[in-house]
Amino acid sequence: MKKNVLIIGAGGVAQVVAHKCAQNNDILGDLHIASRTASKCDDIIASVDEKKSMKVPGTFKSHAVDAMDTKAVADLIRKTGAEIVINVGTPYVNMSVLDACIETGTAYMDTAIHEEPDKICETPPWYANYEWKKREACEKAGVTAILGVGFDPGVVNAYARLAEDQYLDKMTSIDIVDINAGSHGKYFATNFDPEINFREFTGTVYSWQNGKWKENRMFEVGREWDLPVVGKQKAYMSGHDEVHSLANRYKDADVRFWMGFGDHYINVFTVLKSIGLLSEQPVTTAEGLEVVPLKVVKAVLPDPASLAPGYSGKTCIGDLVKGTKDGKETEVFIYNVADHKEAYEEVGSQGISYTAGVPPVAAAILIAKGDWDVKKMANVEDLDPKPFINLLNRIGLPTRVKDAKGDRAVDFG
Amino acid sequence: MKKNVLIIGAGGVAQVVAHKCAQNNDILGDLHIASRTASKCDDIIASVDEKKSMKVPGTFKSHAVDAMDTKAVADLIRKTGAEIVINVGTPYVNMSVLDACIETGTAYMDTAIHEEPDKICETPPWYANYEWKKREACEKAGVTAILGVGFDPGVVNAYARLAEDQYLDKMTSIDIVDINAGSHGKYFATNFDPEINFREFTGTVYSWQNGKWKENRMFEVGREWDLPVVGKQKAYMSGHDEVHSLANRYKDADVRFWMGFGDHYINVFTVLKSIGLLSEQPVTTAEGLEVVPLKVVKAVLPDPASLAPGYSGKTCIGDLVKGTKDGKETEVFIYNVADHKEAYEEVGSQGISYTAGVPPVAAAILIAKGDWDVKKMANVEDLDPKPFINLLNRIGLPTRVKDAKGDRAVDFG
Repeated sequence: MKKNVLIIGAGGVAQVVAHKCAQNNDILGDLHIASRTASKCDDIIASVDEKKSMKVPGTFKSHAVDAMDTKAVADLIRKTGAEIVINVGTPYVNMSVLDACIETGTAYMDTAIHEEPDKICETPPWYANYEWKKREACEKAGVTAILGVGFDPGVVNAYARLAEDQYLDKMTSIDIVDINAGSHGKYFATNFDPEINFREFTGTVYSWQNGKWKENRMFEVGREWDLPVVGKQKAYMSGHDEVHSLANRYKDADVRFWMGFGDHYINVFTVLKSIGLLSEQPVTTAEGLEVVPLKVVKAVLPDPASLAPGYSGKTCIGDLVKGTKDGKETEVFIYNVADHKEAYEEVGSQGISYTAGVPPVAAAILIAKGDWDVKKMANVEDLDPKPFINLLNRIGLPTRVKDAKGDRAVDFG
Repeated sequence: MKKNVLIIGAGGVAQVVAHKCAQNNDILGDLHIASRTASKCDDIIASVDEKKSMKVPGTFKSHAVDAMDTKAVADLIRKTGAEIVINVGTPYVNMSVLDACIETGTAYMDTAIHEEPDKICETPPWYANYEWKKREACEKAGVTAILGVGFDPGVVNAYARLAEDQYLDKMTSIDIVDINAGSHGKYFATNFDPEINFREFTGTVYSWQNGKWKENRMFEVGREWDLPVVGKQKAYMSGHDEVHSLANRYKDADVRFWMGFGDHYINVFTVLKSIGLLSEQPVTTAEGLEVVPLKVVKAVLPDPASLAPGYSGKTCIGDLVKGTKDGKETEVFIYNVADHKEAYEEVGSQGISYTAGVPPVAAAILIAKGDWDVKKMANVEDLDPKPFINLLNRIGLPTRVKDAKGDRAVDFG
């Protein structure tokens, strides 16, 4: 049994993580949240208080920390007595926070791959560039480190494993489809940090097909999908974290990620990218000021957290897995539908933050209870998906499956 | 007779001004060019040398100056012995350079209205906010100051005056139409300083109609024009300097300015403006850096001067003036057609810089010779247009007129 949680980060996803930890503080113990700006943590704790999210009376404290500083994070872990760290800070801090967890013997998890500010879209598999280099160190220290345990990556990795365990004997393709059919009512906004959002789409699109990495450009490959609840939607093959771990476990299957985009999003993205405004490389203004264009774009776009109150509509994210079962060709779509308005009413966040923030809290509970306290580094598909899916069913992200037998809820409880 | 010219600025228009001054240095005397960065002036002088543009052996020197500093400009005027200043720096320096000219008794001219960096599109008439406040000071000091003597404003103001003097008894409307039917081959670029270019279009569109100022939004009013050489082209009512002086002289006529834009330009402009990237007001990045978005857009777009080598096609800029002559309804279109490639071959610049840079040199020659040395502040329509048009015919910008009698060259020589 592990207990006491330290949340790193204070953005939209951290807000959801905080509420969900509070709703389960009888299991998780003392709660702490830290970011560069302590006042953002205070705002989140105030929201937890306002919604009376704490299940039982307990501790929820804010801290200021530079998460790029391993020693500062390790000191904070020791000071708070946290045995589980949920890292939902920027992807730039993964390695420094992970190192602090290894140093202190603390369980670690994150929801997105590590990135270096001045690099985008490095060589595949992405995990091998940073996280997987720490596999031995985790095993040696007996540290549980669960990588990419948001929704995508995260729950969609568990869905792939579920297809392997329950529905198919042999898998030939895994297509992960992420559709946000919601509406925020703004001219243009991204659903999470614009800097990270755009960085996903400015580089090479890597997919795993025919046993090797294939490269495409963003918006080069698109197709219409017909999904439960959200209906017909156009989605484009995109680079995404989970492709880089799933391709390692499912070498014989094609692994692709598809993200839904409307024509308006594509037009805005194309203009900004073509002009050079999405570049992560600094430019110098006529006045001699050195500035990264992408950071200015981020500064002028709406704060994703600000979208929550007016957001309506639903998301559908799932895995279409094809293969054979008992010698017959079979396909199964395992998915979740989330509602922006319901998410806002429950935790004050929009649906995209909700789907990303609930899963790491489920993982924290599974580590606390021991089910997932594997004392080594793991991607989500390496772990038994059943307790995870059961728990998500109960804390806000129910799983459904659609196949030849129909469209139905999935539960192993 | 005045002589010796100091050019302020070292952009694309300054390059044309330098070449044209050199081609007429038998009249203009010693030539000097100054900007914040002396090396940019050196590059322009090197180009003048390379093209052997100096008509007779003479002086052409570069200087570094902060043109916002009136004393520094006045000192430079005294040091160089310049009696004519051609200000083609940014519109932010008009008032400081004009003050230096008044202080030293030097003739002044510019090609665009004064602007303050943190304001766009002030109340009409724009000239009344800055330049016209110096009318008495110019008259008292006997200083010739010719405002807005590029192509538009500038030559188009002379065309309006020509319509008054030659073609019509009564003017009911002046529609200035600026079509660039050239192609630079880039995804997106502006033809002059992007910062100034966009500032023109982000504010209110003022036109003078029915004896009062009318306000529209950019791209709200558009119509197709059928013009000589460039053919059918869509142009949109835009805010522009000359409307603000012509409306003062021609109070009974409607005065409108129309700028040609393709759908691609409008799309890019709309995306950038809607997102807030064309704002002249600073924003703060997540890292705490304060930056003006428009200056970053400028930094990533191609330098307008860099477009010149690959630019092809023609521009057509002119005045459609309607009214009555001998009691009958009459209309006349007075215009110039310029060619990007010919401009590049002659002076190393594209056609937009060429049309803006040749007229102030014509004005300098007319001041040097006395024709336009009026010893007070004037907008171009206040001056006799005939010597100006005759001179432009000879130095690269021929005027044509199209009316019921046909389409023909205009000259009063």
